[in-house]
Amino acid sequence: MSITVRQWQPRSSPVGLPKPSDFEFVSRLLDTTLRPDEVLLKLLYISLAPGMRLRLGAPQGLNDDDYMARHGNVIPTWAIGRVIESRSERFPIGTYVSDLHGRAGVQDYCVLPASELAAIDPTTVPLTAYLGVLGTQGYTAHLGLLHVGRPVAGETVVVSAAAGSTGSAAGQIAKLKGCRAVGIAGGPEKCRYVVEEFGFNVCVDYKGGDLSAALAAACPNGIDVFFDNVAGQVLDTCLLHMARGGRIVFCGAIAEYNVATPPTGLVNYLQILKRGLRWEAVYYHAHPDKYESVGADLQNWIRAGLLKYREDIVVGLENFYPAFMKLFTGENSGKVVLQVNAGETA
Amino acid sequence: MSITVRQWQPRSSPVGLPKPSDFEFVSRLLDTTLRPDEVLLKLLYISLAPGMRLRLGAPQGLNDDDYMARHGNVIPTWAIGRVIESRSERFPIGTYVSDLHGRAGVQDYCVLPASELAAIDPTTVPLTAYLGVLGTQGYTAHLGLLHVGRPVAGETVVVSAAAGSTGSAAGQIAKLKGCRAVGIAGGPEKCRYVVEEFGFNVCVDYKGGDLSAALAAACPNGIDVFFDNVAGQVLDTCLLHMARGGRIVFCGAIAEYNVATPPTGLVNYLQILKRGLRWEAVYYHAHPDKYESVGADLQNWIRAGLLKYREDIVVGLENFYPAFMKLFTGENSGKVVLQVNAGETA
Repeated sequence: MSITVRQWQPRSSPVGLPKPSDFEFVSRLLDTTLRPDEVLLKLLYISLAPGMRLRLGAPQGLNDDDYMARHGNVIPTWAIGRVIESRSERFPIGTYVSDLHGRAGVQDYCVLPASELAAIDPTTVPLTAYLGVLGTQGYTAHLGLLHVGRPVAGETVVVSAAAGSTGSAAGQIAKLKGCRAVGIAGGPEKCRYVVEEFGFNVCVDYKGGDLSAALAAACPNGIDVFFDNVAGQVLDTCLLHMARGGRIVFCGAIAEYNVATPPTGLVNYLQILKRGLRWEAVYYHAHPDKYESVGADLQNWIRAGLLKYREDIVVGLENFYPAFMKLFTGENSGKVVLQVNAGETA
Repeated sequence: MSITVRQWQPRSSPVGLPKPSDFEFVSRLLDTTLRPDEVLLKLLYISLAPGMRLRLGAPQGLNDDDYMARHGNVIPTWAIGRVIESRSERFPIGTYVSDLHGRAGVQDYCVLPASELAAIDPTTVPLTAYLGVLGTQGYTAHLGLLHVGRPVAGETVVVSAAAGSTGSAAGQIAKLKGCRAVGIAGGPEKCRYVVEEFGFNVCVDYKGGDLSAALAAACPNGIDVFFDNVAGQVLDTCLLHMARGGRIVFCGAIAEYNVATPPTGLVNYLQILKRGLRWEAVYYHAHPDKYESVGADLQNWIRAGLLKYREDIVVGLENFYPAFMKLFTGENSGKVVLQVNAGETA
């Protein structure tokens, strides 16, 4: 048995900002003969995130070696789907699932082993939430802030890309823990909803002038925890405003993902020594023992209305390229999700 | 009552490598009328260390704000002395002491409060050891490696400035904990004694050619813990060889202390994100609760012959400048100590 699958594949490794010609939208036959424990998924929602850029070939040795997109294969990413054929007792037909390792890909159907799936409940929160605030980004915000950054009540937490999926969650969790949350975002509209919707104390517009002066004003006692999704110039500036004993949670580097030439380099890194800082990467896969408690926290906070999120849902697999590019132009408003098989009953 | 004290003072803040004209050797009268709990010390051994450069005014905002040397005052540093007048019951005349906060200074006598002193025992290890391996440098090596770096047996620990006082201790402690110790030092003679005297598994000569290739050969499984005393190009190169989940202990930045212009910047810092690294500063003052157990470890290891150290003792307060400069030219062989009041009975 086989079905026709439509999927996006890489055609070439982008140099700088990805171009339409870096991608190919193809139809191919998928063999749906399942092996034991495999299921066939009809995909419903596909996660688009900045980190996918690292799966396409990235500058400065930043490639995601474990999950590189390969010519002739689908671009890998996380997705939500419904089981339509099954050889797994855990996942009978009709079950809604999310994939754990981000291998579903930018396509409308896929086959995955049961070991890479988790069943999800569509009745308590919208399915799309499992791609963002209840997916890798929410988990990373929680683990990064509380397990790596470890702020205590009263401390100042600064979050870059504060309007984004991970950043908005990190700032809200900081507030839930009694911290002062300061966002950094691009443009007055994003800064507005970072404060009004997500409840940050203040949000600094990095496009709005002197970032260093704005940070000094927003953080009179310095930055205790900097949750960084951006790197580059924003990070270099924040280094000058860290409080003694501060912590930098390194979650992303979107400012560097599309840089075609080597970066100018981090000039202020000696502040790590002078101010006695800890700078530590967080990533989703590092703490599997904590998934359950983190998931419970996130679910509880969402149901209680304490953890809000924005989604930017683009309908139609054919719109992958413009949807993906929103992440790098900053046009998106919240988590970017590609909705596929939209015409069919979920 | 007063005595004449000879002391070194800063004349100007050095630009780049310190010049003789940046310092002034003066005699001044010291009022020896003691307040309660103060003692008058005859200094015997004075510690010279790279970090003193930061007390003279340093580039890139690296000044040691807490202990800046001021024009008209002595250059601060740690020293060992003997109590010759006392208004403290804890420190009767004749007691040998080390100062805890590095305020004794480059001079032959000083007055300090009892709260800033610790009594030391001259009978078990030489007094000079309390300035290096039993002083800030040994404590920093111990705390930095075991408390910050936390290597486990079998891991690869790389130490820069491995021939120096802190680095040689860090590497030996790594070996005591069952790790593989790889040194980085300048020149074949230093590399030789890092291996032969201090027992590192191997030592890479950073002046000897392609550091990156040499590190790749010395660390086939990558670097689990990098104990860095150097920063700059050595650090940037090591970032490319870190193992996933590796830790960088940031202890010093001697490559940057005499840089007159802003640094070119750290180009490979995105490896922190990609490899899931933790980069953390260590400094002596951060863990007062651990001083006692650290001191006991160091004493035991020294007595058992498991922790060796080299000293480069320069006699005569008048020789401060050439002795200090050894640290930056790399001419020194081990901990640089200035011996003063050498003609008198200790």
